[in-house]
Amino acid sequence: MSDASGEDPGKIALGAPDDEAARHKAKMAKRKAVQDAEVAEKTREKGLLIVHTGPGKGKSTAAFGLALRMLGRGGRVGVVQFIKGAWQTGEREAFQAFGDRVDWHAMGEGFTWETQDIARDKAAAARAFAQARAMMADPRLSLLILDELNIALRYGYLDLADVVAVLRDRRPDLHVVVTGRNAKPDLLAVADLVTEMALVKHHFAAGVKAQAGIEF
Amino acid sequence: MSDASGEDPGKIALGAPDDEAARHKAKMAKRKAVQDAEVAEKTREKGLLIVHTGPGKGKSTAAFGLALRMLGRGGRVGVVQFIKGAWQTGEREAFQAFGDRVDWHAMGEGFTWETQDIARDKAAAARAFAQARAMMADPRLSLLILDELNIALRYGYLDLADVVAVLRDRRPDLHVVVTGRNAKPDLLAVADLVTEMALVKHHFAAGVKAQAGIEF
Repeated sequence: MSDASGEDPGKIALGAPDDEAARHKAKMAKRKAVQDAEVAEKTREKGLLIVHTGPGKGKSTAAFGLALRMLGRGGRVGVVQFIKGAWQTGEREAFQAFGDRVDWHAMGEGFTWETQDIARDKAAAARAFAQARAMMADPRLSLLILDELNIALRYGYLDLADVVAVLRDRRPDLHVVVTGRNAKPDLLAVADLVTEMALVKHHFAAGVKAQAGIEF
Repeated sequence: MSDASGEDPGKIALGAPDDEAARHKAKMAKRKAVQDAEVAEKTREKGLLIVHTGPGKGKSTAAFGLALRMLGRGGRVGVVQFIKGAWQTGEREAFQAFGDRVDWHAMGEGFTWETQDIARDKAAAARAFAQARAMMADPRLSLLILDELNIALRYGYLDLADVVAVLRDRRPDLHVVVTGRNAKPDLLAVADLVTEMALVKHHFAAGVKAQAGIEF
């Protein structure tokens, strides 16, 4: 480590340390000017519709990270889980530290390949979305996470146009995060922020199993 | 909502509800068999080296979501912030609910375009990595988050080979999450799980500013 802390001659082949420092300063001063101008342009506040999709990990995890941030700012958070009924035990346990500032509803019946019953899955999705609508009407809530709603939409358990309309017409200061792979284009069209989690490398391929504190 | 809860004739144009249910059940039973076989193949447990990279949002947020999950499972979590010294106030506040089970070190001096001083940035990065090494030696820690380490590596503030060797040779049960865009290929080579967060749509482009509980 000690090598990395001071000047490393290998990194500054083109000049003396002073030149490097001056170049760095000029480059970063320019970058700061661009950054400051960009920040100054952004003036509006609004509740965001955020979508985390894609085949990679971190979609629900990042949503729960956002919940944590909102809790740190004193807000209240709602969670409706559309699919993974008994899965995310770790974060659910952890959120108990925030008492009634987290309102958690695990409405799903487990993965679709566990239930194998489309009528039951549809009924569960409908109950979950009814719960979500009720929570959207609660003015104390700052952030609502609709976990794996995209899966329910993908399998046709809910009416897409209906869901999109309800999300679009929500009260203007409510942040909503929708997670799950294969997000519908109609949903993305009304979203403010869309991140796609791409899978680059996965330890399951190397025979490592799901572990407590990481996957659940 | 009520339309989505029951049978929706528009969704089952090819057959009666019973046929749809039977097809769904058969498809999902097959999927479950594949899923169960895949789970059975995975038997190893190990500490994972996880990298969250890419230009999209959610890299640090998903890392903090993992921390929350680990806390929910009773583990202890370390955080070293390499760049954003005074940024993530929301999650830092929230983690106080877990007392000394979260060991948080904001070592960075702010973004590189704020300091404009490469010698100061290098020294800060070296201090942060020394802190990280000390925490890696603490056997009580289950998960260590090295937030924005990729940025420090990208700017050459730390020696890449040194950092990669330290991470690769860590104790086998320690999970480490490294965040930041432009992750180095040498780091990805020793990682177990790599997710790239891709930016599909961003509200900053629509003039919406950074808001408490969402960005910080």
